[in-house]
Amino acid sequence: MKICRLRSLLSLAKFNSQTFPSTTAARTFSSTNHHLQVIDVYTGPNGLLHGGKLIRPWLLIDSSTIDPQTSRNLSATISNYILKEKKGDSERPVKLDAPVSGSIIAAEAGTLTFMVGGSEEAFLTAKPLFLSMGKSTIYCGGEGSGSAAKICNNLALAVSMLGISEALALGQSLGVSATTLTNIFNCSSARCWSSDAYNPVPGLMEGVPSSKDYNGGFASKLMAKDLNLAVESAKLAGCKYPLTSQAQKIYTELCNGGHDSKDFSCAFRHFYSGMDEPHDN
Amino acid sequence: MKICRLRSLLSLAKFNSQTFPSTTAARTFSSTNHHLQVIDVYTGPNGLLHGGKLIRPWLLIDSSTIDPQTSRNLSATISNYILKEKKGDSERPVKLDAPVSGSIIAAEAGTLTFMVGGSEEAFLTAKPLFLSMGKSTIYCGGEGSGSAAKICNNLALAVSMLGISEALALGQSLGVSATTLTNIFNCSSARCWSSDAYNPVPGLMEGVPSSKDYNGGFASKLMAKDLNLAVESAKLAGCKYPLTSQAQKIYTELCNGGHDSKDFSCAFRHFYSGMDEPHDN
Repeated sequence: MKICRLRSLLSLAKFNSQTFPSTTAARTFSSTNHHLQVIDVYTGPNGLLHGGKLIRPWLLIDSSTIDPQTSRNLSATISNYILKEKKGDSERPVKLDAPVSGSIIAAEAGTLTFMVGGSEEAFLTAKPLFLSMGKSTIYCGGEGSGSAAKICNNLALAVSMLGISEALALGQSLGVSATTLTNIFNCSSARCWSSDAYNPVPGLMEGVPSSKDYNGGFASKLMAKDLNLAVESAKLAGCKYPLTSQAQKIYTELCNGGHDSKDFSCAFRHFYSGMDEPHDN
Repeated sequence: MKICRLRSLLSLAKFNSQTFPSTTAARTFSSTNHHLQVIDVYTGPNGLLHGGKLIRPWLLIDSSTIDPQTSRNLSATISNYILKEKKGDSERPVKLDAPVSGSIIAAEAGTLTFMVGGSEEAFLTAKPLFLSMGKSTIYCGGEGSGSAAKICNNLALAVSMLGISEALALGQSLGVSATTLTNIFNCSSARCWSSDAYNPVPGLMEGVPSSKDYNGGFASKLMAKDLNLAVESAKLAGCKYPLTSQAQKIYTELCNGGHDSKDFSCAFRHFYSGMDEPHDN
């Protein structure tokens, strides 16, 4: 078994079907913004699958965050193609959905986490590639499972970030500094990534978006998109989603208020009216 | 400076004003359920301050979770008393509010976190006592600051637990096991105490309430009480509290549904209808 070509879709946010070079083997990782972009990259006029039912890559890896249903449908579409090198037999290309978690900071540090859905054989083949870019690669199950896991991760992340922001802003109003509260959270039961690695209070932690006027990081509009996917998935699955729904409303409000390109931790300042931490605190 | 008597209120949940022996120096730590119980322990017929304006203890430590305003009022009341040993001068007793975080598991392991409000001098005197019972003791500021910090910690905890539960239950419905999702969360941006130390999925983690039919731990009715305090505090402070409010509704519903004595992680099963994890998974 070999990988004919690794084609990551992670860098395609800046491309569209008019400009995407269908023979480029992209290795830069980012994320598409919408499932229609992903479909376009495969089946659009200049897409990977353009030009008939014969394609060259055996393994295609999609690291966008899209809904599990679209991911599964795309896998089914791809499996109907035939490899150019294998015209004489019936070998089919395969797709892995492999969304990634960890933000730009983790990408730079090589500590990304890949959550992978699709054929286990394809996963094992691609695993060294994932591990060259991140610290963890977790196989989630069949087609669409990686997308499902990513949506779940991001809804938990959004809720966690908003809970921490709500608590920190209330604490400030009650006279407890965000630094003190963060110290408490980080050694007790409110500890989380949003408090100890990506704190939303400007001035409290270096190197995170909150200390760069919420620039860089993971944009609020992308979080809003992922929450929309989570809400739609929960509705289809018949699950309760009250906190996801509340988070969706908050990120929609932030986007409508002009903060769509700011990091999602900006909810602390722009939704909760939390205060910056004095640098000498 | 000396501590005439350490009187912890943490074990008073089982006492009332009829039975509480006003001269006992309690050292067992638990928590009262309601601010009226705390006030009763001090000013009730058999309370610490019963019998006139003269009391023996110099330092009183209240580790209940109550609202910051009641905590401050109680401190003011206590400071109007005069020490029996110091009739001749004006030395006043002081109270520290020192709620604790970490659950029964942390208490047993000696890893509790104390968050302390009140006089800094009194805090420094009492610090060795706190550290003998827990791993962290954090000074939060003046009277009521410890109570404020605890309320903020617990609202963030409730939101985090519900977010993780919502994500895990949705993941199960989408075909991703809770074990796989937890592995992802714990090495990515959804990582939190509720996922890596106190997971709500029965069968996934040993020693936590979820694997003991949600017995032990921190009861849903206590979480509901703390969320009520958080909502009231947020209203008074003019803060936004949409996620706290949502969490309050869920824990109220759980209590009304007969799960008031179950650990608060039971929301996974009893609100989200999440499934147990097979032991061989």
